[in-house]
Amino acid sequence: MPGAGRAAGVSRLRPQPSEEPPAQEDLLLAGAYVSDAQYNRNVPFETSPRAIRLYYFYNHWTMQVAIYFFICVDLSLALFEEPALFPLPFLATSIAEVLCLTAFFGRLVHFAKVTPQMVFWKDTKNICIMVTIVLTLIDLIIYGSLEAVNIHSVRWSRALRPVFLINFPESRQIRRTFRSIRNTLPDILYVFLLFMFSVLIFSLMALKLFGDRGLQTVEGLPYFTNMLEIAFELYVLVTTANSPDVMMPAYNFNWWYSLYFITYIIINTYIFMSVFLAVVYNNYRKHLKNEIRKLAYLKRHKMIEAFNILKVKVGTEFVVTEAQWKRLARIVMPHISSPHLELLLRISDEGQKGHVDKMNFLRLADLLNIQVVTINIKRHPLEKWMPWVYQSSASLLVQRMVRHRIFVWVYDVIILINAIFIALDEKNPFISYAEWLFLSLYIIEILLKLYTYEPRAYFGKKQFWNWFDTLIVVTALVVTVASTTIRSARKYNSQQILDIVLILRILRLLRIIVSIQRFRLIVTTLINIGPTILTFGGLVLVVYYVFAIIGMEAFHGKVRFFDPNFTTPDALVCGNPALKDSAFARDRYCKNNFNDLASSFIVLMELTVVNQWHILAGGFALVTHQAAKLYFITFHVVVVILIVNIFIAFILEAFFVAYSLEKSEVETAIEKKIQELGVGIQEEEMQDGKLVDNMDTKDSGFSGDDGDNKGKALKGLYFRIASKKYRTVDALLQQMFESEIAPEDEGPSLDEILNFSPGDIYPKNPNFENSA
Amino acid sequence: MPGAGRAAGVSRLRPQPSEEPPAQEDLLLAGAYVSDAQYNRNVPFETSPRAIRLYYFYNHWTMQVAIYFFICVDLSLALFEEPALFPLPFLATSIAEVLCLTAFFGRLVHFAKVTPQMVFWKDTKNICIMVTIVLTLIDLIIYGSLEAVNIHSVRWSRALRPVFLINFPESRQIRRTFRSIRNTLPDILYVFLLFMFSVLIFSLMALKLFGDRGLQTVEGLPYFTNMLEIAFELYVLVTTANSPDVMMPAYNFNWWYSLYFITYIIINTYIFMSVFLAVVYNNYRKHLKNEIRKLAYLKRHKMIEAFNILKVKVGTEFVVTEAQWKRLARIVMPHISSPHLELLLRISDEGQKGHVDKMNFLRLADLLNIQVVTINIKRHPLEKWMPWVYQSSASLLVQRMVRHRIFVWVYDVIILINAIFIALDEKNPFISYAEWLFLSLYIIEILLKLYTYEPRAYFGKKQFWNWFDTLIVVTALVVTVASTTIRSARKYNSQQILDIVLILRILRLLRIIVSIQRFRLIVTTLINIGPTILTFGGLVLVVYYVFAIIGMEAFHGKVRFFDPNFTTPDALVCGNPALKDSAFARDRYCKNNFNDLASSFIVLMELTVVNQWHILAGGFALVTHQAAKLYFITFHVVVVILIVNIFIAFILEAFFVAYSLEKSEVETAIEKKIQELGVGIQEEEMQDGKLVDNMDTKDSGFSGDDGDNKGKALKGLYFRIASKKYRTVDALLQQMFESEIAPEDEGPSLDEILNFSPGDIYPKNPNFENSA
Repeated sequence: MPGAGRAAGVSRLRPQPSEEPPAQEDLLLAGAYVSDAQYNRNVPFETSPRAIRLYYFYNHWTMQVAIYFFICVDLSLALFEEPALFPLPFLATSIAEVLCLTAFFGRLVHFAKVTPQMVFWKDTKNICIMVTIVLTLIDLIIYGSLEAVNIHSVRWSRALRPVFLINFPESRQIRRTFRSIRNTLPDILYVFLLFMFSVLIFSLMALKLFGDRGLQTVEGLPYFTNMLEIAFELYVLVTTANSPDVMMPAYNFNWWYSLYFITYIIINTYIFMSVFLAVVYNNYRKHLKNEIRKLAYLKRHKMIEAFNILKVKVGTEFVVTEAQWKRLARIVMPHISSPHLELLLRISDEGQKGHVDKMNFLRLADLLNIQVVTINIKRHPLEKWMPWVYQSSASLLVQRMVRHRIFVWVYDVIILINAIFIALDEKNPFISYAEWLFLSLYIIEILLKLYTYEPRAYFGKKQFWNWFDTLIVVTALVVTVASTTIRSARKYNSQQILDIVLILRILRLLRIIVSIQRFRLIVTTLINIGPTILTFGGLVLVVYYVFAIIGMEAFHGKVRFFDPNFTTPDALVCGNPALKDSAFARDRYCKNNFNDLASSFIVLMELTVVNQWHILAGGFALVTHQAAKLYFITFHVVVVILIVNIFIAFILEAFFVAYSLEKSEVETAIEKKIQELGVGIQEEEMQDGKLVDNMDTKDSGFSGDDGDNKGKALKGLYFRIASKKYRTVDALLQQMFESEIAPEDEGPSLDEILNFSPGDIYPKNPNFENSA
Repeated sequence: MPGAGRAAGVSRLRPQPSEEPPAQEDLLLAGAYVSDAQYNRNVPFETSPRAIRLYYFYNHWTMQVAIYFFICVDLSLALFEEPALFPLPFLATSIAEVLCLTAFFGRLVHFAKVTPQMVFWKDTKNICIMVTIVLTLIDLIIYGSLEAVNIHSVRWSRALRPVFLINFPESRQIRRTFRSIRNTLPDILYVFLLFMFSVLIFSLMALKLFGDRGLQTVEGLPYFTNMLEIAFELYVLVTTANSPDVMMPAYNFNWWYSLYFITYIIINTYIFMSVFLAVVYNNYRKHLKNEIRKLAYLKRHKMIEAFNILKVKVGTEFVVTEAQWKRLARIVMPHISSPHLELLLRISDEGQKGHVDKMNFLRLADLLNIQVVTINIKRHPLEKWMPWVYQSSASLLVQRMVRHRIFVWVYDVIILINAIFIALDEKNPFISYAEWLFLSLYIIEILLKLYTYEPRAYFGKKQFWNWFDTLIVVTALVVTVASTTIRSARKYNSQQILDIVLILRILRLLRIIVSIQRFRLIVTTLINIGPTILTFGGLVLVVYYVFAIIGMEAFHGKVRFFDPNFTTPDALVCGNPALKDSAFARDRYCKNNFNDLASSFIVLMELTVVNQWHILAGGFALVTHQAAKLYFITFHVVVVILIVNIFIAFILEAFFVAYSLEKSEVETAIEKKIQELGVGIQEEEMQDGKLVDNMDTKDSGFSGDDGDNKGKALKGLYFRIASKKYRTVDALLQQMFESEIAPEDEGPSLDEILNFSPGDIYPKNPNFENSA
C-alpha cells in the first residue's frame, strides 16, 4: 500500500536528512509513484525492491499491448465459433480460448506478486476475472464433451468474455462509465417505474376507448384489442418508431382521438425522455466529479510519497536536488530529450537554486503529461545544398506565392471544381482525364509546399492536416495507378480497389474544412474529445457483445437471407413460413438476422438507431415466441435510455468544458517559460503556414537573448505546447479541482478519499460546482 | 423613465427630510415601482399622476385578460376562414378581425399614453404591432375586393397574426425564448453548414459507391442514382426516419457497405445532433443568465426608486415608516390579509423599531411574491356542534383508523383491484356492478377523511392531491349516474359521455402515485416546471401557426380524406392520382392533410415527432412539386433542431436547478420568522395528513408562547410557505444572482444594464457560473 511505502520511506529518511544521495531503489520507488500519478494509476503495490521491479515490468507497454491483444483474440473468437462468419473447428477455437485464459491468468499472477495479498483478495475485479476463467473452462469442458457425443448445447460462457475487457486495471475509463451507470440506476428506476405506470394507464385507456370500436390497422388486423399488445405498441410510440401509423385508425375514426395520442406523446416521449436524460446527465456529472476529485487527491498523495522519499534538507525547507530530480524524470520518462528536460527543470526550479521545492515537485506529474514538441530548427535542405538556386529571385517569388492567402483560395476553388467533376458521370472519357489533372494539381501543391517549408517541420508530429493531405493524395495516386495498370493489363476491374479510389477522391474534398477557421475549430473540438468517445466505443462493444451472444443463441438460423432478386416463396418469407405477411418480410429485412457476429452487430446498431425496431422485434417474435420482444425492449432500455443518454451527457459536458475553459495553470506556466526563454512558436503561426518566416526572423536574434549556459543548450530549438488532445474532460476537471487544493494541503487521509460519496462534495465545496 | 422618476422623487424629498407623510400620489408611484419589481415588468412609464393612474389601469388584470381574449379570437379565426373547419362567410371573419385589430390598436394607444414618447417610438415591439395592423388591413381590403369580383387570392397576412402574441409586453417569456433562438443562430449556423457539408460529402460517396450498381429499393425503384434524392435520403437518415430501409439494398448487395452507413450514422446522427444540442443548450444557458442578471438589477433599481420616494430620515439613516410601509403594501396587494401583512412587517422590521430600513425595504417585492398560506385553525365543525358524538370512543377509533398508514395501503390495494376490473371485459354484468362498488368505496374514503380532518384544511388552496381526488370521484359519480339514467331512459348510449366516464375511471388510478413518496416527488417537480413549459406551448403555437397557414395555402385540397373502408380507386390514392403507388397512399395517410387548421396542426405534430416525416413530405411533394420538400426540411430544422433542443435544454436546466438548490434566502427568512412566532406548520406534516394532530398539540401551548400584542393578533392562525410552484427556473436563477449583489450595491447604471452582453458576465463574475 502507498501508505505503508510512505511510512517506510519516511522512517528511512527522517533520521538522516543528509546530502547523501538516495539509493537507486528509492529512486525507482519514487519513480513508480510519479509514474502512477502521471497516468492516474491507482494500483497499490508492494515497496520491496523486487516488487517494484516487477511493477515496472507490469506497467511496461509491451505487457499492456499483449493483454489487449489477448482480449481482442478472445472476443473475436465469436467470429469463428458456430454460428460463424468464418467457421473453424471447435478444437481450434477452444485451444485459442485456453491460450487467452492462460494469458489472463498469468497477468493476474503477475499482479498478485506486485500488490499486497490483502488488497489483491479484497479486489472484486480480480475475483471476477478468476471466477470467469473457471466458469469458461467448465463450460468449455461440458460443451466439448457433449459435442463429442454429438449433443449440441449452449456455449453460455461466451457472454462472459467482456468481463476481461472491463476488469483489467487498464480499462479504468470503461469501468468508470459502468460505475456511473450503476450509480444512476436507483434514481432512474423510480422515473422508469413512473413512466411504465403512465404507459400502462394509457394502455388501459386505449383498450377502453378503442378496443370495442372494431377498428382495423392498415394491414387489416384488429386495432388495440389486446392489453399486452397495446402496451407494446405504446412503448414503441415512446420511441416514435410507429408514429403516426399507430394513431391513424383512431384518427380516421374521429379526429378528437388524436388528442389522446398527442397527450401521450407530450407526456411520455417528450417529458419523460427528457427527464431520463436529465437524471442520467445529473448523475453522470455528479459521479464524474466525485471520481475526479478522488483522483486529484490520490495523485497529490502519490506525489507527496515520492517527495518524502527523495527529500533532503536545505536550509529550513525540504527539497529535492536537481541531480535527483533529473534522475527521477529520466526514470519516469526514459525517452525524454535533454532540452525538454532542461525546460521542465527551468520551470520547476524557477530561482535556479539547484533544487526543486515541494510545491514545484508536486507539479512534476502534470509537467510530464504536457506534450511539448521540440522543433529543431534547420534551414531548408535545398538552401543548404544549393543556396544560389533557392535564394534566386524566381525561387523566392515561388515561395512568396505559396505562402500567400490566394494560393489557399485557388486550391479551394480547384477542390470545388473537382467536387463537381466527381458528381458528374465519369463514363465520359474527358472527365476521367480531368481526374488525372486534379491529381497532378494536388501533387504539385504538396511539392510546392515542401519546397517552401522545411520538410521536417511540414511533417511535424502534430501537423495533422498536412499528414492528412499528403496521405490522401499519395494513396489516391498509388491506387489510381495500380487500378489503371490492372485494368489495362487484365481488363479486370476490381470492385474493392475502385471503391477505395472513389472514397479517397471524395475524402480529398475534406481539405476545404481546413481553410475555414470556424469549421476547423469545430472539427478540432470533435477530434479532441475523440479519445474519450472511444471509451464509449468500449462500453458499447461490451453491451453489444453480450446482447449479440444471447441473440445468436436465441435467434440463430431462424431467419435466412436470400438474394434480393430471388422471388421464390421461401425467399419472400426469409426462409421461415412464420413470417408470411409480416412487416419484417414485406420490408425485406431478411439480412437483419443473428446468424453470425457481424450480422448481429449490425442488427443491434439498427436497434440503437431505434427506427423500425418494432418491426425487427415483431419479426423475431414471430419466428420464436412473443416473449422475444422482451429481449428487444431490454436492449432499448439499456442502450438507448442509458448508454445513448450518457453519451449525449458526455458530449454536452465536453462541449461546455471546452467552451468555458481556457489553458490550465500548468500549461500556462510552461508557455510563459517558453516565451521567457524566447523559444516559443505560436500555434496559429504554425497553422497559417508562417512557420519558416518566423523562424528566420527569430533565429537571428535568439542566441543573444539569453546569456547563460542553459540558454545555449536550448539554442536552435523551439518549443510549443503540442496539442490540446490530452485535454479530455477528465483532465480538465482534474485541473480545475487541483487548482482548488492549497499547495500545502495534503488532503484527507487515504481511507477518507476512497470512501468519498458524491454527497460529500456539494455542501463542503460549493465552488466545485464551478466546473459545471 | 424610471431614471427620470427617481430624479423627481429625490429632488422632491431631499430638501424636506421631515416626518411629514408623503402624498397619496407618491405612494401610488412607489407602489407602481414595487409592483413592477414584483412582477418583473420593465415598462418605463411617465411619473405624472395621470399617467400613473393610467398605468395602474393598464396593468389591471381585466385589461390583460381582454387582450389575451382578442389575441385568441384573432388566432382562432383561421378555424373559420377558408380552408375552414367550421366555415363562416368572409364578411363575418373580416369583421371579427377588424374588431381584434381595433382592440390591439386601443391597447397600443393606452400604452403610448403611459410611456414616454421617445421610449414608445424607439421600441420595435410597438412598431411591429402597428406595421402588422396596417398590413393586415391592406390585405383584408385587397382580398375582399378581389373576392367581390370572384378572383381568389391569398390571405398572406394571416401568417403575421402570431406577431400580436409575441409583441405585447405580457408575452415576455415567449419573446425571451425567441431572443435566445436568435442569439443561438450564428453559432449554430456554422455547425449546420459543416453538417450539411458532411451530408453532401457522404451523398457524393453514396452516388459513386452505389449509383452504378443497378440496385433497387424494396419498391423496385432505382437506388441512389440521383444526387439530390440521395442528399434528401441521407438527411432523412439523420432524423433516423428511414433507417434501416435506406441501407438494406446496399447491405443486401455486400455487407461491407453497411460500414458506410454506420459511419454516417455515428458522425451525423449521433455526434452532430449532440453538438446541436450542446450549442443550443450552451447558448440558452448563457443568454438566460444574462437576462436574469439584467432583471435582477432592474428590480433592485425599481425598489431603490420606490425607497427614495418614501424615505424619511430617522436618526442617521433613511427609512420608511411602518405606516407608509403598510399603505404601500396595501396598494401593491389590495387583497392581502391583515395577519399576512403583520407577518411580513415583522420580518421586514426585525427590531420592531416602527420603521423599515433600506435593506429590508428592498426585499419587499420578493416577500410579496412568496405565497404564504394563512390557515385559520378551527376545531372540526362536528366537534363544535356535537362534541359528545365526535369525541366518543367509537368516533375516535374511526379517526385513528383513517389516520393510520394502513388505511392508505388498503385503498392502494383497492385501486389495484379496480385496475384489474377495468382491464377485464365490462360486458360482464358482475363487473359493471363492481364499478358501483368501487365508486362507493372511494366516496366513503372521502367522507371518512372529511370526518377526520377539518374540511377547510382538507380543501386548502394548495392541497392539490385532495382536490384531484375529490374532483375525479365526484365527476365520475355524476357522469356515471347521468349516463346510466340516459341509457335506461332512452336506450341511447352517448359515445362522448361513455368516453368521459371511462377516462375518469382510469384517471382515478393516478391516486396511487400519491402514496409513493418518490413518485410524488417526480410529479411535483414536473408540475412545478409546468408553467414554464407553457411558455414553450406559446412558442410552439407561434411556429405551428405560421407553418400551418403557409401549409394550408400550399397544400390545401391536394389530398382528400375518404372513409378508410372505402376501396374505390379514388379513395386508395387520397383523391389524387399523383399519389398512385406512393408510400403516402399505401400507409393510408390521407387524413394527414392541410385542409383545415386542426388537421394542419396534427400533421405538424407528426412532423415534430419525426418518424415517417419523409413519407408525408414525399406525398405532398408528389401532389405539388419536389420543392415542397423544402417546406418539410425547414420545419424539421426550425422545430426539431432548434425548438425541441431548447425544450430539452430547458428541462435539463430545470431539473439541475431543482436538484442543486434548496430554499431561497428570503423564503428561509420568512420560515424562520414563522417558526419563531410558533405559527408554522411543516409541509411534510400537511402531506402526511397529520395536519390536525399537530394543530391540536400546538394549539394548546401557543398563546403563552409570545407575550406581546402582535403575537395575539396572530393567534389561532398558522402560516406555511405555500408552494414551490412559483419557483420556476427564472425565479431560482434570479434569487441566486440576487444573493450575490451586495445589499448596498446599487448596481450598474440603467444604460449599462440594458446593454449587457452575455460575454460581460463570465470574466467579471466567475462565481456566477455557480448557478449552472
